[in-house]
Amino acid sequence: MYRQVVIGVMGGANAKPEVEKAAFEMGVLIADHGWILLNGGRDSGVMAASARGAATRGGITVGILPGEGPAGMSEHISIPIFTGMGMARNCINVLSSTVVVAFPGGPGTISEIALALKYGRPVILVGFDADGFFSPTKKDGSLSSVATPKQAIDKIKEYLNRTDRGRKAPSRNR
Amino acid sequence: MYRQVVIGVMGGANAKPEVEKAAFEMGVLIADHGWILLNGGRDSGVMAASARGAATRGGITVGILPGEGPAGMSEHISIPIFTGMGMARNCINVLSSTVVVAFPGGPGTISEIALALKYGRPVILVGFDADGFFSPTKKDGSLSSVATPKQAIDKIKEYLNRTDRGRKAPSRNR
Amino acid sequence: MYRQVVIGVMGGANAKPEVEKAAFEMGVLIADHGWILLNGGRDSGVMAASARGAATRGGITVGILPGEGPAGMSEHISIPIFTGMGMARNCINVLSSTVVVAFPGGPGTISEIALALKYGRPVILVGFDADGFFSPTKKDGSLSSVATPKQAIDKIKEYLNRTDRGRKAPSRNR
Amino acid sequence: MYRQVVIGVMGGANAKPEVEKAAFEMGVLIADHGWILLNGGRDSGVMAASARGAATRGGITVGILPGEGPAGMSEHISIPIFTGMGMARNCINVLSSTVVVAFPGGPGTISEIALALKYGRPVILVGFDADGFFSPTKKDGSLSSVATPKQAIDKIKEYLNRTDRGRKAPSRNR
Repeated sequence: MYRQVVIGVMGGANAKPEVEKAAFEMGVLIADHGWILLNGGRDSGVMAASARGAATRGGITVGILPGEGPAGMSEHISIPIFTGMGMARNCINVLSSTVVVAFPGGPGTISEIALALKYGRPVILVGFDADGFFSPTKKDGSLSSVATPKQAIDKIKEYLNRTDRGRKAPSRNR
Repeated sequence: MYRQVVIGVMGGANAKPEVEKAAFEMGVLIADHGWILLNGGRDSGVMAASARGAATRGGITVGILPGEGPAGMSEHISIPIFTGMGMARNCINVLSSTVVVAFPGGPGTISEIALALKYGRPVILVGFDADGFFSPTKKDGSLSSVATPKQAIDKIKEYLNRTDRGRKAPSRNR
Repeated sequence: MYRQVVIGVMGGANAKPEVEKAAFEMGVLIADHGWILLNGGRDSGVMAASARGAATRGGITVGILPGEGPAGMSEHISIPIFTGMGMARNCINVLSSTVVVAFPGGPGTISEIALALKYGRPVILVGFDADGFFSPTKKDGSLSSVATPKQAIDKIKEYLNRTDRGRKAPSRNR
Repeated sequence: MYRQVVIGVMGGANAKPEVEKAAFEMGVLIADHGWILLNGGRDSGVMAASARGAATRGGITVGILPGEGPAGMSEHISIPIFTGMGMARNCINVLSSTVVVAFPGGPGTISEIALALKYGRPVILVGFDADGFFSPTKKDGSLSSVATPKQAIDKIKEYLNRTDRGRKAPSRNR
């Protein structure tokens, strides 16, 4: 299997029902596009909802877990990566994502958006009013803000088409 | 896709031809069993050879990279996890492996065997004469030593049958 | 030497002259109070200025460096901790700080404020207008905002008096 | 305070009485030479004994802890660095040590010796019969083996005299 496009989905462990619903839809759409969903792997909020969404379509879900084992892990994670590093795993989440999609969340999510911008990964905020705060701080990373998962998909496609990630993958043979 | 069995393959970045050949065969066998191959992701030695072996059979290969991007990565890694953490990623390698298979290697490989034993992950040495050194130090982890990749596969099956990992996976529905 | 009070000073690697001046004064005041200054250890911006300030008063300065060695390190760091983990060291910065003081900065600083709130460490913003953004997200950590280093010192004292860290330290014998 | 010489002391969390006695003496000697003692910070075995030894002479002791807070920490640590990263902190232990001194231990200690050799830090084994195992694997790091803490001190002095660390420190002004 050649190198995959990995879409990171970040967002609160405690999320409102409408945010969880959107995260679920995001997971569905990511799997439908044949991309891999990556998140923090826990069994709550945006993590659980997005993994469940991708799983309903048979997508591969990678969970970057804070702990050393499966306690508290979503059952919809197909490839768990156990870091044993707590929040330091947030760096791995964003570094390993071709594009980072961020739903509303608390300080954990904010740290991930900040680290993504620091590391130069593109970030798409979905219904998360943090654009004004982060815009002046973005460096190499691009930051955009949309209202719905479908709009996020369009932004991801734009990014993949603009870079070699979208073109390169299909040409690689095993 | 339900939770997968992940087999970690460790071993030297500088490996003798016969070790690389065995690592390639290990990758082939892991993919043929439908397991995921996990390694350090770099384009050299046991890492490159085992990923190439799995890729020839269409297997999923997860590379836990030391750097922040794809420089020096094997082209046979389908899901790269970029840690940006150097050798600290060795902990993630072994924590994320259902079973750790270790080919001959230098201090990096030795650190991974030691960390696997420390974290209680089973370790199978393949043609690596380190059994005598490590045996007195093993804790919860089990340590065994075999001569060939095929024998390693038998040991992996024994372990999976002995634990719930072998039984649980098929019964899970998405 | 009994357990010390460690004050973490965060802020931009690229800082305006007036911010560097305030960070220098912060370092002076921390050393004058007999506390240890901890920062990211690099030779630029708020890190360099605060370490220089503490060093002029003979204070101990701990630098949690992103790299594996002293390249790019401030010469005013007395105890360098080399992590080799890039931005993942930001977690260590805030976990190891009794109190976190944050000067204006970019996404790196924002990630540290977010991680501190996530980990329940008290954060004092000095001349950094991020209070409104972070306030709704704070969890166990307390968040306050002041205009000057001297006011930050008052807040630190308040916190130390309120907790056992202020009382316990002097009573411990070696 | 100018940049300090940091001596890392590794060894088992479960240590025999004679090993703990030697680790205590090692801590005493490190403090008497004005060096900083660094270890894993926990309240057991070689870590606790060496910190206690240094503390009896008023030395500075840095503990690189696996957890996010002081639970299980030796009371003789003056500067705790909380990593929240479990065994991944072993990398930080050796990277931050000018010289690594290793007493007998289990897989944790073995991982630290291996990582030190991998990272090119000099390692001195004290009464730990692992020389034969590690010698073929050392890379840039030097590996030596002695019987007593006093002999370890001689080796440390040799190393400091051979490198710029021994000469540079005194010439630096704050």
